[in-house]
Amino acid sequence: MSYQKIKGTLDFYQQEATKMRLIETKAKEILKTFGFEESITPIIEMTDVFIRSSGENSDIVNKEMYTFLDRGNRSITLRPEGTASIVRSFLENKLYINSPVTKLYYCGPMFRYERPQKGRYRQFMQFGIEVFGEESPFLDADVIISAYTLLSALGIKGIKLKINTIGDFASRVNYTAKLQSYFADKIDDFCEDCKQRLTKNPLRILDCKVDSEKDVVKRAPKIKDSLSDASLAHFIEVTTILSMMKIPYEVEDTLVRGLDYYTDTVFEFILDTNDDLQGLAICGGGRYADLVKNFGGPDISGIGYAFGLERIMMVMTNQNLFTDIDKKTDVFIISLDKESKRLGLEFANQLREEELVVEMDYKNYTLKQQFKLTEKLNPKFIIIIGEEERENNIFTIKDTQNNTQEKVKKENIVSYIKSKKQ
Amino acid sequence: MSYQKIKGTLDFYQQEATKMRLIETKAKEILKTFGFEESITPIIEMTDVFIRSSGENSDIVNKEMYTFLDRGNRSITLRPEGTASIVRSFLENKLYINSPVTKLYYCGPMFRYERPQKGRYRQFMQFGIEVFGEESPFLDADVIISAYTLLSALGIKGIKLKINTIGDFASRVNYTAKLQSYFADKIDDFCEDCKQRLTKNPLRILDCKVDSEKDVVKRAPKIKDSLSDASLAHFIEVTTILSMMKIPYEVEDTLVRGLDYYTDTVFEFILDTNDDLQGLAICGGGRYADLVKNFGGPDISGIGYAFGLERIMMVMTNQNLFTDIDKKTDVFIISLDKESKRLGLEFANQLREEELVVEMDYKNYTLKQQFKLTEKLNPKFIIIIGEEERENNIFTIKDTQNNTQEKVKKENIVSYIKSKKQ
Repeated sequence: MSYQKIKGTLDFYQQEATKMRLIETKAKEILKTFGFEESITPIIEMTDVFIRSSGENSDIVNKEMYTFLDRGNRSITLRPEGTASIVRSFLENKLYINSPVTKLYYCGPMFRYERPQKGRYRQFMQFGIEVFGEESPFLDADVIISAYTLLSALGIKGIKLKINTIGDFASRVNYTAKLQSYFADKIDDFCEDCKQRLTKNPLRILDCKVDSEKDVVKRAPKIKDSLSDASLAHFIEVTTILSMMKIPYEVEDTLVRGLDYYTDTVFEFILDTNDDLQGLAICGGGRYADLVKNFGGPDISGIGYAFGLERIMMVMTNQNLFTDIDKKTDVFIISLDKESKRLGLEFANQLREEELVVEMDYKNYTLKQQFKLTEKLNPKFIIIIGEEERENNIFTIKDTQNNTQEKVKKENIVSYIKSKKQ
Repeated sequence: MSYQKIKGTLDFYQQEATKMRLIETKAKEILKTFGFEESITPIIEMTDVFIRSSGENSDIVNKEMYTFLDRGNRSITLRPEGTASIVRSFLENKLYINSPVTKLYYCGPMFRYERPQKGRYRQFMQFGIEVFGEESPFLDADVIISAYTLLSALGIKGIKLKINTIGDFASRVNYTAKLQSYFADKIDDFCEDCKQRLTKNPLRILDCKVDSEKDVVKRAPKIKDSLSDASLAHFIEVTTILSMMKIPYEVEDTLVRGLDYYTDTVFEFILDTNDDLQGLAICGGGRYADLVKNFGGPDISGIGYAFGLERIMMVMTNQNLFTDIDKKTDVFIISLDKESKRLGLEFANQLREEELVVEMDYKNYTLKQQFKLTEKLNPKFIIIIGEEERENNIFTIKDTQNNTQEKVKKENIVSYIKSKKQ
């Protein structure tokens, strides 16, 4: 009997793991220059944390969460997204006391029980940021710029920013009423989910996967005509700053994003690449004025975004952006008897102290077998140790890149290889 | 209402996250020089994977696993340890085809439903390695050396290696019979767990938390008197190589490790520090000749070790090994009006492109408030932008370390700060 991973989950090993870490490392590097620090929260949280953030009637809570009772009969959930945990941790640890603005990034697995399909996984890696403490349009712009900088630094081509405002609370009340009245006599033709949305949250009809392409949806009232003065001024300022900063964007007035807690600025980066990934959303986020307060915390506004690493990997693979990710072996040590192997181990660890990647043969292969082994690892240098070499204290070092070889004394091996490697 | 993390889980944020990543990064750096690559497996696995590796009657499976049915009624489990998942992934992805030796490291959260107590968590971060494909004592030694190198590179003082052999299958059969006969008339005084162990796995009596300090346990037959010739020769070779490599170790003949799948070499690194952490185990592992085969794979031997990052963090904190982990701000930009803020954002992003950490004020604070803000961030440089500065295209840059300030033209700001920062 053999075992398999759970449907909808993935293994990343060797080059695939290198690709994932490359994205993660680059993202962290960029965000550090923007003043961000990391937050690592647990994978498991009390289920209420996610009900509070996503809403009792959301798809996530009703259909997609991995929720179960632990041995102490508490309802716990594998986090389906990052923001709720970060807000919980921000509040529980009272980070707002230390600084007027708190900038955090996070990276780790999230879980949703979705039907497995191309590009959708039950466990997926999400990278995201959250900033708390400030509602200035300059922060909205700076956050969006950080995402743009990060995606650009990964080399991704064809990045396009779509931006919209869904207004503050007052704007939303106004707009919701308009949508309800507009859709009231049209809803019969819509999907069952949209029928429910009409009373609960008619904004979500606008980005329904089934109905959003309908002409009647496209002709629906626009949020921009329902905005409060404050929301309108905020949005104008954000887009003005983006223009000045030469970040290309498009205002898309049907963009409402999938989460109920957003207010004012919402945005998505999509691919505009004229290939089969055209239109793919690769990063999304928005401001949330009330989420921290709704968690029982002080009245602190937040803004954030997130992206899935599997999707970024797919895009980068598609655009041939992963190069030079093979395992690199600097030195392979071939040893021809047990005594030589002991010496080889000594050499190996001297070289490793110099940050060289060193492999050796652990078994007593023949010289021919050993050379075959090295072909796979493709080391820059090969050191050969046998009885004769040990007795004379002189070892042959092959430079495989220049196809040369030299005889070097034991005490000079490290410096020889270091100098040749430069 | 406010929310809290689950009992027995931890948040790591800002400096604490930096500490954890510092350990992880250093470990990966060291292991790369030993030829290791990463494996990232899912947090969730089919429950059978862990029953197969830990044994149906183990404490882990019976008392400590987070096991639940998913929405499709499959029994899934949050991984309680790393090895089983890595073996599953190694086999499922047939990594043994590519190379005679496969060296993998992993790092991520593990889950055990244990009674929360100091130093024990329900979610904990584990770093580990596994090597497949080779049974040479040179590999055992090289693996142990990699752990020793890694712990030393973190700066941990007082590291002591304890090593033992628990023999191959033949040795174990022999030894088990001896222990059963030895303990048969003594078991009445032992704990309930040990009474069960007598028939199931009497070796585990030797490291029972309750009974292992009893004299009668200390006088029990030793494994070294039951070893097969092959196991004895293997162990002698491993310890000989370690001596030659000047790795200090102690043979501890009661060391059997907590997992049933080990064979031959088992080892632990403990602290020998003469303080309140004296004797604390910080890393442990061993060889497992049969685990891969028991998973339904080919007859390939493995060896590995693991350590908990929370525990290493505790030790390093205790030994004052975390220095210079505060957030560093290179530049803080103070801007006194909206127009200046726009310019500030432009400066910020030019400087960030040079990998400088730049913060700015997003709100319209007064100059006094702004200087107060900067005190907290302690930036190396402060740039001040106001109406006058904009009009004259000359900006004041304060060097807070040298307590000097200079006036610099807009186009020279980046080069000025870069040159001063060197």
